Amino acid sequence: MSSVGDHCSVDSIASWIETRNREVSVEVERIPFRAMDKWEVMPDNSLRHSSGMFFSIEGIRVRTDYPTPTEWEQPIINQPEIGYLGILAKEFDGVLHFLMQAKIEPGNVNNVQLSPTLQATKSNYTRVHGGKNAAYLEYFRNAKSEQIILDQLQSEQGARFLRKRNRNMIVKVDADIPVYEDFRWMTLGQIKELMQRDNCVNMDTRTVIAGIDFAEQSVSEVDMAEMSNFGRGMIESALTQKGVKSLREVLSWLTSLKSRYDLIVEKVPLNQIEEWECKDDEIVRYDKKYFRVLGVRVHIDNREVVSWCQPLVQPMQQGICAFIVKKIGGIYHYLVQAKLECGNRDVFELAPTVQCLTGSIFNGAPRPPYTNYVLNAGKEQIIYDALQSEEGGRFYHEQNRNMIVEADEDFPLELPPTYQWMTLGQINEFMRYSNYINIQARSLIAAIKYK
Amino acid sequence: MSSVGDHCSVDSIASWIETRNREVSVEVERIPFRAMDKWEVMPDNSLRHSSGMFFSIEGIRVRTDYPTPTEWEQPIINQPEIGYLGILAKEFDGVLHFLMQAKIEPGNVNNVQLSPTLQATKSNYTRVHGGKNAAYLEYFRNAKSEQIILDQLQSEQGARFLRKRNRNMIVKVDADIPVYEDFRWMTLGQIKELMQRDNCVNMDTRTVIAGIDFAEQSVSEVDMAEMSNFGRGMIESALTQKGVKSLREVLSWLTSLKSRYDLIVEKVPLNQIEEWECKDDEIVRYDKKYFRVLGVRVHIDNREVVSWCQPLVQPMQQGICAFIVKKIGGIYHYLVQAKLECGNRDVFELAPTVQCLTGSIFNGAPRPPYTNYVLNAGKEQIIYDALQSEEGGRFYHEQNRNMIVEADEDFPLELPPTYQWMTLGQINEFMRYSNYINIQARSLIAAIKYK
Repeated sequence: MSSVGDHCSVDSIASWIETRNREVSVEVERIPFRAMDKWEVMPDNSLRHSSGMFFSIEGIRVRTDYPTPTEWEQPIINQPEIGYLGILAKEFDGVLHFLMQAKIEPGNVNNVQLSPTLQATKSNYTRVHGGKNAAYLEYFRNAKSEQIILDQLQSEQGARFLRKRNRNMIVKVDADIPVYEDFRWMTLGQIKELMQRDNCVNMDTRTVIAGIDFAEQSVSEVDMAEMSNFGRGMIESALTQKGVKSLREVLSWLTSLKSRYDLIVEKVPLNQIEEWECKDDEIVRYDKKYFRVLGVRVHIDNREVVSWCQPLVQPMQQGICAFIVKKIGGIYHYLVQAKLECGNRDVFELAPTVQCLTGSIFNGAPRPPYTNYVLNAGKEQIIYDALQSEEGGRFYHEQNRNMIVEADEDFPLELPPTYQWMTLGQINEFMRYSNYINIQARSLIAAIKYK
Repeated sequence: MSSVGDHCSVDSIASWIETRNREVSVEVERIPFRAMDKWEVMPDNSLRHSSGMFFSIEGIRVRTDYPTPTEWEQPIINQPEIGYLGILAKEFDGVLHFLMQAKIEPGNVNNVQLSPTLQATKSNYTRVHGGKNAAYLEYFRNAKSEQIILDQLQSEQGARFLRKRNRNMIVKVDADIPVYEDFRWMTLGQIKELMQRDNCVNMDTRTVIAGIDFAEQSVSEVDMAEMSNFGRGMIESALTQKGVKSLREVLSWLTSLKSRYDLIVEKVPLNQIEEWECKDDEIVRYDKKYFRVLGVRVHIDNREVVSWCQPLVQPMQQGICAFIVKKIGGIYHYLVQAKLECGNRDVFELAPTVQCLTGSIFNGAPRPPYTNYVLNAGKEQIIYDALQSEEGGRFYHEQNRNMIVEADEDFPLELPPTYQWMTLGQINEFMRYSNYINIQARSLIAAIKYK
C-alpha cells in the first residue's frame, strides 16, 4: 500500500507536500469588507457570515486587575461553536499510523501543510456554506467508545479568539477505509520528524498530537535504548512522581491566581473601540501594533476551481513561543507560565515560558521574563527550533518561532510568582481536562521527539 | 479546651446551634427595591450595589439547542468575583478538627447554621461595604503551600448564578489560634453526622467538605471494621479501577455533549425580559413559576445590632436533589446526570441523578427521568434523606430535599444518553478540577457517612 508511512520516508512525505504546493495556485486578494460575498458588515462595522453562524469579528472591552488595573479594547474572532479536529488511526504491521491530509489554507505562507484527517466547524459539517460533506466526518460522529484514543476539548489562541475551542479526537479504525487523494498514512515518529521542519505540520495537527500521552501509549512497546537521551528524559518526566511540586500544589497555585485576578470581557460596538480604526478594507490600530483584520477573496486553482471570501487576521509582528526545560533532581521540568489572555475561558491558562511578540514592539521597554535568555541561548542548549504557522483558515501568514531550550547549570530555580516548574507527567494530566494548557504550549509539547 | 469537638457530642453541637438560634432575632422585612440602602435600581430595573461590586441582578437571554432548540429569558445573579469559602483545620490528640462557625444568614429558615471558618466575597474582604475585616481571613490569604489541604475553584447554582465560583480552601494550622465567639472545633465525623439532620450545616460548608477525598485522606488511619457496610462500599468505590467506564470514557462522553450542544447567554435589559414582570418590590414571572427576586431590609438583634438591605431570591417551588447508587460488579456506582444550566461556565456539569423542582410544576407533564423512582423508593433503599438549605446570603427560605437512594436489583443498567454510571473515585478525580461536579452533587457527596 503505497500510501502507508512505514513504506515511505519522511523526505518523500515532505516532497509530496512540496509537490502539492507547486501544483496548486492560491490567490488571496484583498478586497473591501463590503465586497465579501456571503458576509455582512453590521451597523457597528462588525463582520458576520450571512448564515449567522461560522465566525464573526466583533469588538470587546477587556478589564483586568492583572498585574495592575488595566483596560483595553480590541477586535476578536467570535466562533462559539465547537469544531472537530480529528485524526483517524489504524495499525499496519503492528504500528499505529495516522491518516493525514495535505491541505490548502488561504493564510498559510506555503499554501499546503499537513493537517488532521478532519478539520470541520459545526457550520462546515451542518453545511451552512453549502458544499460537500467533509470527508471522513462519519468516522468521528459515529465512533464507538472503544475506538476513541483521544477526545478532548482544547482552547485556541486566547488573544485572538473569544473562548473558542475544538474537539480534538483520535479514532482508531480496524476496517479498510478509502484513502482519498491528498491523504496519506504516516507514523507518529514521521509526523514529529516533520515538525522539526518549518511550517510543514499545521497547528490543528500539532494541537491534536500534543494530547497523546506518549509514555502511557507506547513506552512498553518502544525500546528505550533506541531513544535519544532527551527522549528517555521525557519518558522519565512523564512517569515520575518526583516533581518539585505536587499536582495538588500546582492546582492550588493556579486556583490562587484565578481567584486573585479578575478578567471581565464585554462586547462593545466595533466602530467605537479605542485605538482602532475601521476602514473599508482593514481594521487596524492607529499605531499599527499587534494585528489587523483584512477582507479577502480566496481563489484556489487546484483540480477544481474554488473561490470564496472571508476576513483574515494578519499579525503585525513576529512572535516567539519557547519552553525552558531543566533537569531538577535528575528529572526534566518545564518552566510553565500562567498567562492571562482576554479570550481565555478561565482567566489563566498554562503557557510556554516565553510567549510574546518580537521585533520592534519592545522598543526600549524591558522584554517579558526569560525572552532574552531564550533568544541568546547557545547552540548546545537548543533542543528544538522551528518556525510554525498558526491556523491558515483564520490567520494570514502568521508564523511564530517555536523553541525548546535547555537551561544551563546556573539557571535559578526560584521563579517569579506566575511561573512554575512542572513535569511532563503533570502537563499531560492537565491536558486531559479542558482549558488548562494553552495552544502555544501544546504546539511545543507536540514537537517533543523521542528518537 | 471546651471548644474542641472531640470533647463534645454531636447533640451538644446541635443544641449550641439551637441556642444561638433562640438568642438571635432576625427580621427580614420586604421593602421596595428603591428603598434599599446602598443599592441602585438602574434604568432597565436591574439592581446593583452602589459600589459597583458585590453582586447585581440582571436580565439574560438564553439560547440552546439542548435537547431541542429553545430560548428563554430570566433574571440572574451576577457576581463575577471569586470569594473564599475557607475552613481552618488543626489536629488535637492526632485527630483533625475543623473550626466551624454558627453563622446567621438572612435567608436561612432557621437563622443560624454551621458555616465555614471564613465565608467572604472579594467585596467583603476588600471592605466595599465598610465594616470589620473578616475573622481569620489572614490565615487563608497567607497560607503556605504545605498548609493547604484543599484548594479548589467550585461553581454555584447554574440556574441562579451567572458563572459564579468560590475558592474552597482547607488550611491546616499548627499554632494555637484564638477561637472567637460563635466558633467551635469539630471533627469531620461530627460535621457529617450533623448533615444527617435538616438545615443544620450550610451549603458553603457542604461544598468545601465535598472536596475532601476521604479514602485518600484517612483510609490508612481509619479502622475499616468500624465502618458501616455502605461506608466500606464507598471506600472501595473511591479506590477501585473497576468502574463500568474508564475515566477516559467518561471524559469523552462529556466532551461529546459539550461539543454537540450550544449554550449562548446574552445580557438583555431586565425590564424587557419575556414572561417576567418588574414590580416595585418584586421581579416575578406572570405564571409565578420558578423563583422571584425580593428587596429586603435585614435587621439582626444579636450582641450588637446590625441592619442592611439587599435583594434575595425566593424559590416558588420545593425541589429535590437525589443520587441513585447501585453496586455493579460489587462496586458502588453513582448514577450521574450531565446537566445544562444557563449559568454554567462550560455548558454541562455533572449533577445528581435527579435535580428538579417538585410540587405542582409538572402538573400532568412527565417528570424528569428517575424522579418517581426516587420519590417512591422503599425505606430500605434510602441511605440518606434530609432537607438542606441553599446559601442564606442570596436565597430566601430555599431548601431542597437531599437523598441518596440505593437501586433495587432490577434497576436497569442501560441509561439515557445524558446519564452515566461513575465510581466515587471518578467523581473525586473530577472534583479536583473546576466546573465538573455541580454544587447539588457536591452537597450530596459531602453527606456520605462512613461510620
